[in-house]
Amino acid sequence: MFLRQHWYVAALSSELSEQPMSRTILGEHVVMFRDSHGTVVALADRCPHRGYPLSLGRLVEDRLVCGYHGFTFDCSGACVAVPGQERIPSKLSVRHYPLVERGCWVWIWMGHGEPDAGTLPATPWLEDATNWSVVCGAVKIDGGFSLLVDNLLDLSHETFLHHGSIGTPEVAETPIEVETDQERRVVHVYRHMNAVQCPPFYSRTTGLTGQVDRWQDIDYYPPGFYQLNSGIAPVGQPPRPDGSDEHAFHMKIFYGLTPRTEDSVWDFWALARDFCVGDGEVDLFLSKMQAGVVQEDVDALNVLQRRLGSSPEMTEVSIKIDRGGLAARRMLAEMAHA
Amino acid sequence: MFLRQHWYVAALSSELSEQPMSRTILGEHVVMFRDSHGTVVALADRCPHRGYPLSLGRLVEDRLVCGYHGFTFDCSGACVAVPGQERIPSKLSVRHYPLVERGCWVWIWMGHGEPDAGTLPATPWLEDATNWSVVCGAVKIDGGFSLLVDNLLDLSHETFLHHGSIGTPEVAETPIEVETDQERRVVHVYRHMNAVQCPPFYSRTTGLTGQVDRWQDIDYYPPGFYQLNSGIAPVGQPPRPDGSDEHAFHMKIFYGLTPRTEDSVWDFWALARDFCVGDGEVDLFLSKMQAGVVQEDVDALNVLQRRLGSSPEMTEVSIKIDRGGLAARRMLAEMAHA
Amino acid sequence: MFLRQHWYVAALSSELSEQPMSRTILGEHVVMFRDSHGTVVALADRCPHRGYPLSLGRLVEDRLVCGYHGFTFDCSGACVAVPGQERIPSKLSVRHYPLVERGCWVWIWMGHGEPDAGTLPATPWLEDATNWSVVCGAVKIDGGFSLLVDNLLDLSHETFLHHGSIGTPEVAETPIEVETDQERRVVHVYRHMNAVQCPPFYSRTTGLTGQVDRWQDIDYYPPGFYQLNSGIAPVGQPPRPDGSDEHAFHMKIFYGLTPRTEDSVWDFWALARDFCVGDGEVDLFLSKMQAGVVQEDVDALNVLQRRLGSSPEMTEVSIKIDRGGLAARRMLAEMAHA
Repeated sequence: MFLRQHWYVAALSSELSEQPMSRTILGEHVVMFRDSHGTVVALADRCPHRGYPLSLGRLVEDRLVCGYHGFTFDCSGACVAVPGQERIPSKLSVRHYPLVERGCWVWIWMGHGEPDAGTLPATPWLEDATNWSVVCGAVKIDGGFSLLVDNLLDLSHETFLHHGSIGTPEVAETPIEVETDQERRVVHVYRHMNAVQCPPFYSRTTGLTGQVDRWQDIDYYPPGFYQLNSGIAPVGQPPRPDGSDEHAFHMKIFYGLTPRTEDSVWDFWALARDFCVGDGEVDLFLSKMQAGVVQEDVDALNVLQRRLGSSPEMTEVSIKIDRGGLAARRMLAEMAHA
Repeated sequence: MFLRQHWYVAALSSELSEQPMSRTILGEHVVMFRDSHGTVVALADRCPHRGYPLSLGRLVEDRLVCGYHGFTFDCSGACVAVPGQERIPSKLSVRHYPLVERGCWVWIWMGHGEPDAGTLPATPWLEDATNWSVVCGAVKIDGGFSLLVDNLLDLSHETFLHHGSIGTPEVAETPIEVETDQERRVVHVYRHMNAVQCPPFYSRTTGLTGQVDRWQDIDYYPPGFYQLNSGIAPVGQPPRPDGSDEHAFHMKIFYGLTPRTEDSVWDFWALARDFCVGDGEVDLFLSKMQAGVVQEDVDALNVLQRRLGSSPEMTEVSIKIDRGGLAARRMLAEMAHA
Repeated sequence: MFLRQHWYVAALSSELSEQPMSRTILGEHVVMFRDSHGTVVALADRCPHRGYPLSLGRLVEDRLVCGYHGFTFDCSGACVAVPGQERIPSKLSVRHYPLVERGCWVWIWMGHGEPDAGTLPATPWLEDATNWSVVCGAVKIDGGFSLLVDNLLDLSHETFLHHGSIGTPEVAETPIEVETDQERRVVHVYRHMNAVQCPPFYSRTTGLTGQVDRWQDIDYYPPGFYQLNSGIAPVGQPPRPDGSDEHAFHMKIFYGLTPRTEDSVWDFWALARDFCVGDGEVDLFLSKMQAGVVQEDVDALNVLQRRLGSSPEMTEVSIKIDRGGLAARRMLAEMAHA
């Protein structure tokens, strides 16, 4: 059911410590923690003895001790101690998952074999504190993965679902352009709005008021990584042919879409900006604002999932604004087929 | 599963306003509201675009705007606006349900085709404030429709389940008479009690104390309408042959039985009386009293439904008091068969 | 699914009164109460009329009156009154379950036919207040019966799950001996620890500190009765060949394992000691301590059951400490087969 041969965001960097934590990812129970050197570790969260969650155990000298009968595992998942006997049966080891920590996110490889490091999505904006300030968060959605894809690929919903923060009438009114890059496996959705109202999200942080030029360019790398290149500039000062646009204010809004179960999904988000860098008050404002926006999405998708359960005849009608979402669905279907 | 070609009570009149509200009726999600003229409107509570509940949207100039992407519908269910384009696809409309407001109740037609206005149950007592005072309420029961039919058709339960309010020993002791009118599709159940104790429900409101003559005559119009013609009179002053009984105090207790899902049902009730008309204190007393009685039924039927789930071998033994309920079941089965 | 031809603990003696109480046992709804002589009674908790729980009714002159329509049953389960008529249909009776009260526990016979009194497990220690003081409790586990069997037959978990109270490192380290008595249908598990640390459970109540000899001898009588013969003695004063050991302190810890549904179980426990007999403070200390230990088991088994639901591929690896549990499983499987 899940696309396994991919990197997914597994946790915020700040969530992991020497206290083991459990998280369900692609239907699998995973325990994650940091060893005494700070390195992040992920193992299957199930003791092979009687199935007790290892996340309820304790980390003792970089070894995870099961809280039920004390079966003990090192950070590679190998069993190193059992109760009542010296000999350790060979099948007593648990799966180890590769993890990579990049900026505020920790990525997990859920596939078989060794991961290709080159396939990890690039997020330099999350790792460059000199030029970009970042706020981030994570939330569980009790709705299926595809509901979140639909949501993020069609931002016309901002006008209605997020009308107090980032949604202005022009977002819904403005037609989009969609491009699909089959080779690099990306779906692009472009929405450029000229001389439009500046939403509170930007006006309170940039000082720009009244009308602005605004753009929202989506790069979606199925299945798990989404990047929204969002920006505003004073009216009439568009990017130059060489791409430079020093009058503009930029935000990169990232989403890690990580299936949890067949009908729930983790929504990791991170927001990087190239203005007011290092300004803690702006951090706080944007963090609260974005968390509020994400919660509006969560509430809506939770409602949609419940409705899916109670009215299975889920017919749809699609219009032009849906072309981004439909392109994403097609690419996901091709990847599942392959 | 449901008998659809019928009128059902959908809401209390007081529940509907310009704020859309969602209600599940016969397994369908329905959104109801009042337009700017106060007219009640019911539409399918599902946007045809991506299935979001329209009840979470807003009413703007008598048009319902979906809260997710802004698809907009008029009061007939026709789509009148979509985001990002002018042209509106023809299949974008939602089902419109006929509603009729009568007294404190709003009725809905759940069937196909145009409803026959003549088939709407007559409730003149709810629409005649000069001669009848009315209190009403609505409650959801987490139990199947047939449990509520059983409950209302066999009032011997009053003695045990409602012994503090309307139940006296004589209700259970008194044999009943049952008549079935196949042509008009009514089940009648008569229970006449002479020289019996006056229950608190009546004694506190009529001033009658000690012994009274009391009667409970049920007219059940399957599936959704139930009328209990209840009355008391001083002992020895029975109705005359011409039906007049000016010494008596009358209550008409109405129930709208509206299936919600396969195993839950809406219980709308209304209580009209021809004494203490316009007396707000009596309104309050009877309203609280009846709400308490209904809640006792709700609690009992919720328990029964949970038991049905956990012990499926639901054998029954029926006795004479069950003849009303059995006649109702037979008529419902015939209607389902037809 | 259940082994029915057996005695099970149904309730604590202190739980039963003239107020009827409902309990699900082996998937059946049972109502239990005491009649006016104090005798314990158990009947099927379902009125044969319309299925309402009799436990929601009232006991009137040793007759249980259904709270819905007043059908009335005597303590043998025979129906003695119905509403609205004199004649009582012959099929209107409910199942009567044999009960036996012994010390702090009430046992129920869930099988067909008359129970063989000789098959009731012997618990003289619970009925001899002169020589043994007893504390007891009952708790529901939202996990299957077999999880509790596994838990109780492998006490190596004490070291990890109960490390603050009864678990010391030696419990997990010490190998066990297992004996199976096919004829009497008992599984014995012996664990003898010499010169080990005295756990708080004992040190605070016996006054022994430092090192002690300690033993835990389990007698499990499948399916429903478990006895742990636990003791400590000063180091080097083992029982004599004739079994006498007047320097030792003894505790008998009993469990009644009573399946509730396919995936939940009642855990009745009782703890008898032959020291500090009649000392209320020690009663209180041990009662709180044991209730805490049991709650740790409950929490663990609830977690395991939820995990069983979400990861059905329940492979296991067993080692030497599991021999007791595996022997119990085999005996249960043989009994189910027979």
